[in-house]
Amino acid sequence: MTTRVGVIGATGAVGQRLIQLLDPHPDFEIAALTASPASAGKDYSEAAKWRVDTPIPEDVADITVVETDPEEVPDDVDLVFSSLPSSVGAEVEPTFVEDGYVVSSNSSNGRMDDDIPLTIPEVNPDHLGLIEVQRDERGWDGALIKNPNCSTITFVPTIAALDEFGVERVHVATLQAVSGAGYSGVTSMEIIDNAIPHIGGEAEKMETESRKLLGAFDGAEVSLHDADVSASCNRIPTIDGHLENVWADLSEDPTVEEVADAMRDLPSVDLHSSPDQLIEVFEDPMRPQPRMDRMLGDGMSVAAGGIEATPHGVQYNCLAHNTIRGAAGASVLNGELLLEEGYI
Amino acid sequence: MTTRVGVIGATGAVGQRLIQLLDPHPDFEIAALTASPASAGKDYSEAAKWRVDTPIPEDVADITVVETDPEEVPDDVDLVFSSLPSSVGAEVEPTFVEDGYVVSSNSSNGRMDDDIPLTIPEVNPDHLGLIEVQRDERGWDGALIKNPNCSTITFVPTIAALDEFGVERVHVATLQAVSGAGYSGVTSMEIIDNAIPHIGGEAEKMETESRKLLGAFDGAEVSLHDADVSASCNRIPTIDGHLENVWADLSEDPTVEEVADAMRDLPSVDLHSSPDQLIEVFEDPMRPQPRMDRMLGDGMSVAAGGIEATPHGVQYNCLAHNTIRGAAGASVLNGELLLEEGYI
Amino acid sequence: MTTRVGVIGATGAVGQRLIQLLDPHPDFEIAALTASPASAGKDYSEAAKWRVDTPIPEDVADITVVETDPEEVPDDVDLVFSSLPSSVGAEVEPTFVEDGYVVSSNSSNGRMDDDIPLTIPEVNPDHLGLIEVQRDERGWDGALIKNPNCSTITFVPTIAALDEFGVERVHVATLQAVSGAGYSGVTSMEIIDNAIPHIGGEAEKMETESRKLLGAFDGAEVSLHDADVSASCNRIPTIDGHLENVWADLSEDPTVEEVADAMRDLPSVDLHSSPDQLIEVFEDPMRPQPRMDRMLGDGMSVAAGGIEATPHGVQYNCLAHNTIRGAAGASVLNGELLLEEGYI
Amino acid sequence: MTTRVGVIGATGAVGQRLIQLLDPHPDFEIAALTASPASAGKDYSEAAKWRVDTPIPEDVADITVVETDPEEVPDDVDLVFSSLPSSVGAEVEPTFVEDGYVVSSNSSNGRMDDDIPLTIPEVNPDHLGLIEVQRDERGWDGALIKNPNCSTITFVPTIAALDEFGVERVHVATLQAVSGAGYSGVTSMEIIDNAIPHIGGEAEKMETESRKLLGAFDGAEVSLHDADVSASCNRIPTIDGHLENVWADLSEDPTVEEVADAMRDLPSVDLHSSPDQLIEVFEDPMRPQPRMDRMLGDGMSVAAGGIEATPHGVQYNCLAHNTIRGAAGASVLNGELLLEEGYI
Repeated sequence: MTTRVGVIGATGAVGQRLIQLLDPHPDFEIAALTASPASAGKDYSEAAKWRVDTPIPEDVADITVVETDPEEVPDDVDLVFSSLPSSVGAEVEPTFVEDGYVVSSNSSNGRMDDDIPLTIPEVNPDHLGLIEVQRDERGWDGALIKNPNCSTITFVPTIAALDEFGVERVHVATLQAVSGAGYSGVTSMEIIDNAIPHIGGEAEKMETESRKLLGAFDGAEVSLHDADVSASCNRIPTIDGHLENVWADLSEDPTVEEVADAMRDLPSVDLHSSPDQLIEVFEDPMRPQPRMDRMLGDGMSVAAGGIEATPHGVQYNCLAHNTIRGAAGASVLNGELLLEEGYI
Repeated sequence: MTTRVGVIGATGAVGQRLIQLLDPHPDFEIAALTASPASAGKDYSEAAKWRVDTPIPEDVADITVVETDPEEVPDDVDLVFSSLPSSVGAEVEPTFVEDGYVVSSNSSNGRMDDDIPLTIPEVNPDHLGLIEVQRDERGWDGALIKNPNCSTITFVPTIAALDEFGVERVHVATLQAVSGAGYSGVTSMEIIDNAIPHIGGEAEKMETESRKLLGAFDGAEVSLHDADVSASCNRIPTIDGHLENVWADLSEDPTVEEVADAMRDLPSVDLHSSPDQLIEVFEDPMRPQPRMDRMLGDGMSVAAGGIEATPHGVQYNCLAHNTIRGAAGASVLNGELLLEEGYI
Repeated sequence: MTTRVGVIGATGAVGQRLIQLLDPHPDFEIAALTASPASAGKDYSEAAKWRVDTPIPEDVADITVVETDPEEVPDDVDLVFSSLPSSVGAEVEPTFVEDGYVVSSNSSNGRMDDDIPLTIPEVNPDHLGLIEVQRDERGWDGALIKNPNCSTITFVPTIAALDEFGVERVHVATLQAVSGAGYSGVTSMEIIDNAIPHIGGEAEKMETESRKLLGAFDGAEVSLHDADVSASCNRIPTIDGHLENVWADLSEDPTVEEVADAMRDLPSVDLHSSPDQLIEVFEDPMRPQPRMDRMLGDGMSVAAGGIEATPHGVQYNCLAHNTIRGAAGASVLNGELLLEEGYI
Repeated sequence: MTTRVGVIGATGAVGQRLIQLLDPHPDFEIAALTASPASAGKDYSEAAKWRVDTPIPEDVADITVVETDPEEVPDDVDLVFSSLPSSVGAEVEPTFVEDGYVVSSNSSNGRMDDDIPLTIPEVNPDHLGLIEVQRDERGWDGALIKNPNCSTITFVPTIAALDEFGVERVHVATLQAVSGAGYSGVTSMEIIDNAIPHIGGEAEKMETESRKLLGAFDGAEVSLHDADVSASCNRIPTIDGHLENVWADLSEDPTVEEVADAMRDLPSVDLHSSPDQLIEVFEDPMRPQPRMDRMLGDGMSVAAGGIEATPHGVQYNCLAHNTIRGAAGASVLNGELLLEEGYI
């Protein structure tokens, strides 16, 4: 028995990745695709300019795209994956949840709302409990769950692994791939032989989302982790894969080997899209590298390397595939968690 | 009256940049070019595979290359610029200084030696006083002066500007251009659609050289600045221009505008290759960018931007042209300082 | 006495290059800048997102942009440079000419019209005579002159040089830089680690414009050159500089050296922006290369190399800076020719 | 029953690709790896700097590398794949064949020798008959078979498909990926924001190898195809995938659709590594593109597109993965053909 799912905002970059991941998925069946009114009524193959590096799935190509409106989505669809611009998501996602749909969303709207779970299944699956709060407060039948921003997802699992040593302060500099900005987000003239030292809103997302993800949930609310997180975000000329340099001040004084072990031992979860080992740790300080390591664990692993002790704690590098682990795969994994936990 | 100068290690990447800068220089005249024995006896145009983006100067093309040996360099040459691999530099440079030459060196050997000035003319020109110490201790007639590593030069002027606010701790992440590794240093397969999170020895140079440059000289020795500096170095697919993300913990609490003013007001020096304003500060957080801003001040400026207050001080980005301000231009500027101060 | 000039379509990529070239020009003075209604009334520095690699000229920054309408341009402006999308150009340019302005246009509309000169000053300056035809036929007071497409300009001078050997057939494959498509024309996701084997309309422009440029003008009309020209156009990940592989079937059988001499000897013209030698010929088959050679002659030279005899004629490579020699510089040079020939 | 195979020259770029393809191969079992004396005696994981984008196979990592000498290879190995520099290959390969080994070689030495089959299984499998000639003439027990150069393999299948229309003359311009030059073949400073219009010896290989591949074998010798082939070879900043622009003069006058059908209908062969359809033809003129299409058919397809009629025949673009279909995969496929045809 597979769960029938929809993708809202199906024609964009993350929408296409969602379809690429959902089409062969053993538990999900794509039953509805939505997009803007201009695309409604067209076959998906006509509505979307398919640009993923595997061919458009044949059975998806012929699906007729409908408008992004719960009325347009069949009733037997239980779960929808959302990847909309945040302003659209803020407006549209609640209409789906009110209508009873469970929404696993990659859109940035509402991620920091008190009653919306922001979840990485391997890091804070218990935050799903916020769905009860959400239903109580908003009178919703469905549920709305968010995954964090791609640059947040990349480093938070490593911080979660370090938290046994008392993480007090984090500096993180990112080297982010162009795909994170969508197909038209970064022009070639902006980035060839160049780098851009700012991505609007990105540092703020990393600084706040990380503290919510790492915060404790007491059954009623999430208290933010009290680490001081400061980010600096750069765009570089790579296609996929966000690389990050991290410094973590720790209250304890672990060895490099203890840090590596803590990362390797961070428990994974028994869900289809989660790799056997979440964080792969390299001994070679030249790794991880975006082109070489972004597809580890089918793009769902986090890679770390270059671990060194500092007078205040530790520094290291980490990497994840920004449109798989950092976006579409994150939403799919949250969908798997929702299914596993009985919310669907 | 121009000073006759030599370039030792003239065929390499920095050697070629030195020639590009020295050929039109009003105060210097290229009178000797040295290279390895395999090149000795050849015309420079034959010995060097010229790859700088301006044509090889005509009068330099015909100079006969000699071996890197003080015996081979005419006696009326007073100043030599050195850009050798550090192991070669460590062996060869002292032979020139013993022979009475003043050597302005970009090679990394000896930079942290107690009696060798490591100098950025706009930051610590007084360290030139170490030459007296050096002559006393080593019995040298000439003098040996070093410029720092390219990635060090990029951020140290900004820290110097901030030091009025009490710099206590620095985190710096670099996005470094491939030219910093020399013509053959980074292969295309290593870096296209990729980034490399480690450059051997680079972080250590930044962490130690910066503290010497910012240290106080009491007439006898330089005491290292007591800031705690931690660096993380990345190679990215850009040709020229090192971009750096900096966080500085400060003992005072300046506003963003005070920080910007302090950077803009860092005094320049009245030397030919020094720009009117050393640090150019951008309001636009998207700047500086390597391709757009590396040629500011003919490649001798430092650019800064994205200044933001943090709970502990300030964060910002900075950029400099790594083979001009960060290498060949740095050596030439040190040569100008030596001339100005009467060491030649 | 300088000529007061206007730039219509001043905020786009070629418009900015035009301003960069016109600001220091000894014969021209920028007196009017036009753009779309949304920009009208703003200072140029506010209306344009300046992206050229030299700072925005100070005296241009404060010019108030007006709408692209001859009524809005001061009467003492005699010459306007146009760089508009072809659909806009087709509509707007005639209104300027009717109003008496001389228009040097880079826009593609009308290039193949019988009575519009399509001119490269070093190749076919006599085609300017079409202005008389144009005035007779259209009743215009002003004049409209076009420069060809950037990919056409790159190879046509070399074919002009070869025409003494009887050019019968030409195959040309292009490797074109992203700047040719404008700032937003090629996204980074389209081109990093990639190439695109088609540029809409480009091959047709090369095939037709080249034959008009090389055609004979008999005082009344231009007869197209009868060579058979076939082009294949590719976009590659370079910023500036179009590289082209050319095969020319010839009726005669010149040696490689004769071909090289013919290229070197193609006469230049005595105009400010024309280099002393139009075509620079390399012996090294690895040259010309975009990044190394695009700025030859301040971006106004054509470079050639790799000349080899074939059973049917000759093959070689050529290169020019696509937004200088191939666009803005081409228009400025045509403006200089118009001034020299007394049309202004 | 699998065939035990060896890889000679196992540590290089193509050697690693060979291992990546052979490790999961149903018919072959890696039983010997050879390299230079410096690597002999080491585990393969230690001898090779593994840089392929999938992890080093576990059972291969522990194989002890031996010297490239038939004495060092176990007797029960029947087939060896060779990927050596041509000068080494010319010396070493015959010693293996004399010793009875069947050698499927990617090295360029001997490709044009009269008695050595140069084979693409889908194009000219009958040329394998040259092995009898070879054995007769050289007194060899084993056999030596070559695959062509990567840039040759890319376009020859399309010409083979067109040959029913009488191919008389071919112009082909290449846009080649950096991996074709090996890991260290192209430096980053040579190629970022650049292109190189010459690859030593490449055009000659395309011009001669293509005519041998397309030539007729009469049981005794191969007569070269009489088409006149002229190539121009460029290196561009892509990692993998050679794109080529082709013009073919034809004696007949097929429609675009007939050309596309001829390409699609070129028969594949029933071998493990051969795709179901050898040539995939795109309607979209923007395709094929290296990053999007190089992995079609697991990297073993040829893609074509942009087909247009010309006055003399047809022009189009084609693409293949240069280190899979163009090198390691080509050798493996030839190995499969040798097995199928009973030579092993």
